[in-house]
Amino acid sequence: MQYQIITVGSELTLGLSINTNAPFISKRLGQEGFTCSRHISVPDDIRSIARSITESLGQGDGVIVTGGLGPTVDDVTREAICESAGCQLEYQPWLARVIEERYGKRSVPLPQITYRQAYLPTGAKAIIPTIGSAPGIILERDDKFIISLPGVPREMGSMLEYDIVPWLRSKFQRDEAYKVRVLRTTAKSEASLQEAVGDIVDSLHNISVGILAFPGEIQLQLLAKGPDERIVDQIIKEAELQFLDRLGNIIFGFDEQTIEEVVGRLLRKNELTLSLAESCTGGLTAKKITDIQGSSDYFFGGVISYNNDAKRSLLNVSNQTLLRHGAVSAATALAMAFGVREKFGSDIGLGITGIAGPTGGTPDKPIGLVYIGLSHQTTSYSNRYVFFGSRDIVRLKSSHAALDMLRYYILDNFEQVGGDVS
Amino acid sequence: MQYQIITVGSELTLGLSINTNAPFISKRLGQEGFTCSRHISVPDDIRSIARSITESLGQGDGVIVTGGLGPTVDDVTREAICESAGCQLEYQPWLARVIEERYGKRSVPLPQITYRQAYLPTGAKAIIPTIGSAPGIILERDDKFIISLPGVPREMGSMLEYDIVPWLRSKFQRDEAYKVRVLRTTAKSEASLQEAVGDIVDSLHNISVGILAFPGEIQLQLLAKGPDERIVDQIIKEAELQFLDRLGNIIFGFDEQTIEEVVGRLLRKNELTLSLAESCTGGLTAKKITDIQGSSDYFFGGVISYNNDAKRSLLNVSNQTLLRHGAVSAATALAMAFGVREKFGSDIGLGITGIAGPTGGTPDKPIGLVYIGLSHQTTSYSNRYVFFGSRDIVRLKSSHAALDMLRYYILDNFEQVGGDVS
Repeated sequence: MQYQIITVGSELTLGLSINTNAPFISKRLGQEGFTCSRHISVPDDIRSIARSITESLGQGDGVIVTGGLGPTVDDVTREAICESAGCQLEYQPWLARVIEERYGKRSVPLPQITYRQAYLPTGAKAIIPTIGSAPGIILERDDKFIISLPGVPREMGSMLEYDIVPWLRSKFQRDEAYKVRVLRTTAKSEASLQEAVGDIVDSLHNISVGILAFPGEIQLQLLAKGPDERIVDQIIKEAELQFLDRLGNIIFGFDEQTIEEVVGRLLRKNELTLSLAESCTGGLTAKKITDIQGSSDYFFGGVISYNNDAKRSLLNVSNQTLLRHGAVSAATALAMAFGVREKFGSDIGLGITGIAGPTGGTPDKPIGLVYIGLSHQTTSYSNRYVFFGSRDIVRLKSSHAALDMLRYYILDNFEQVGGDVS
Repeated sequence: MQYQIITVGSELTLGLSINTNAPFISKRLGQEGFTCSRHISVPDDIRSIARSITESLGQGDGVIVTGGLGPTVDDVTREAICESAGCQLEYQPWLARVIEERYGKRSVPLPQITYRQAYLPTGAKAIIPTIGSAPGIILERDDKFIISLPGVPREMGSMLEYDIVPWLRSKFQRDEAYKVRVLRTTAKSEASLQEAVGDIVDSLHNISVGILAFPGEIQLQLLAKGPDERIVDQIIKEAELQFLDRLGNIIFGFDEQTIEEVVGRLLRKNELTLSLAESCTGGLTAKKITDIQGSSDYFFGGVISYNNDAKRSLLNVSNQTLLRHGAVSAATALAMAFGVREKFGSDIGLGITGIAGPTGGTPDKPIGLVYIGLSHQTTSYSNRYVFFGSRDIVRLKSSHAALDMLRYYILDNFEQVGGDVS
């Protein structure tokens, strides 16, 4: 079964809003073995919506439309479905009662326009909402389906899960099982990763591999297809082992795992605690670490030393270090890491100092130059990086590099060779 | 001129990646008066891309394709353009030299596959990249255009601004002027903002108003159309004045202005300096403040006190305060604000403490309970909030509230009534 997704809303084609519904639906139905072959976004305009529905039905087994089901006059998906399918809207008194009841629960007077939601295309089935007030629609025509869901993500998600997934399961045999596995790496570039694993990629069967770059991270996205789930799992597993064998610790995580999650797990597992001194990243690294629920078990806190006074008074970085080496130097990064570890009494301290730009660079110390120091008991060392990109990107890459440096430190010193990094 | 956008990448239709390129292009070209009538996302598949290009060209004056221009084998946009336009790829030795030179600058050995980027469809014009290595493509056929840009947002954005916008301006007359203006507010909800300005919205001509909710922020999006730019500016200006008059300081900024940018401007203008003590937000607020270039002029730094020891030792919060009132209390928020101000020697200190969840709530102190304290010379006060939502949302709303509290403090004490908040 192949389908397409149409998201309706002028705010989308105007660029005022990001489309999160289409990826959500694709991903969820992908887990069920249903393939989405295209995403389309169109304005709140009957003809545009209808034309896209017709086109999509010509290219697959069905279409899922989200948005345009509300009560206001710019909600025209119901009309567009009729125009594409050549049918009429019919008033459903029972649906009006359902909608009244839903509003009644919230004891709000019922605006007249709400009754627009009680109309259904001839022959369509209504989906009663459990969240919100907009009924969904399933219309079957000539072995194809048109599904229409509300645009509000929470309302859409609920209907997708409790109504659409069961309906699709009952309707379509999955002719093919399907699985996506993402290997997340700290490879230097797409090209270097391609070089490193190109021969493995070429040798794989029933699996396609994409290499994608994100700031501070290169992903290997594996997509396997096969007759059933067991075989697909096996295909993924075998490919994954080859990549792991070749790349080792360059792979920092899998699927949704972020580097802060992996580092958090390593700290917890090895009963290590952390504190953080940040200069150019300005709190971004601490923010990432504390994104993880329960991070207070291993993260004591941090100092954002955005000027030299703070480096001296809060982190005990000496005047001499700052004068002789400068605020952006290996010596200062090390002193920051040591200072913050002492202040917070944590096992490990990290210090990050650099020039995020877009101004402040010199020939000696260009924009993107970043030093990261690590201090743990009698060990201390620092790394030097030069990152390319905007201020945001340099900051993001710096945080990622600091977390990756910590990850390698723990793997090298606390985990067995070839240990489980997941 | 009407055009469509096609974003290429299997990660999009698989739901592994969010499409930010299409809204970025729509918005930027919308400012130029060019209307995007549809967004499409397709997998890395020659036939799918080619079919969508052909469809889009049938519905407008042109198509902008992003992605699929890299060097790897799954980058097939060049081939798809040829399939749709009925032409061939031709090797361009001069383009190969340009690419070599770009790589040479970074002194990285040049992988063989990179030369795939030196091929162009017959009759096409190459766009030399200033960022990254992938050349863009402009192909004109029968009064229609196919523009192909890299998928990496920074590379795409740079080419759009410096190559595509000038090319489109020289090519197409704008038949209608068009302007979007976003008023960003700290209203409590969409419904409360609708109530506050509903009568103004109904009375407006030639302008449509959308009300959209984002975490910590409600936006009024104004879209005006008219015969020329001067008239459209006038329509927007008049509407804006009515909203400003009604809403006053609830409007914190316009268009792309973030609250951290507005607060930064207010601090700078009034020669005030800031430091920050964060608990539940874990560095997010400092990260936002330091997102702004030049923030080191007014931001001294911060302490992330993720445990009580840090609150005591780095911020001088007394044991008595912590024991009597608890870590999440007005007294602790005030003590954190005072303590961080003293430590850093800044004019103003902010303290944020709360329960972000998803665990850690009690009947007395539920998840989402947040106290924010502000300390300045002899003034100090705190606000109490209860935010609903996930851990991420509670943290985001907390940071936003802290910045908004600081904004109001400066407006009330340093700016004249009705002063310029922009």
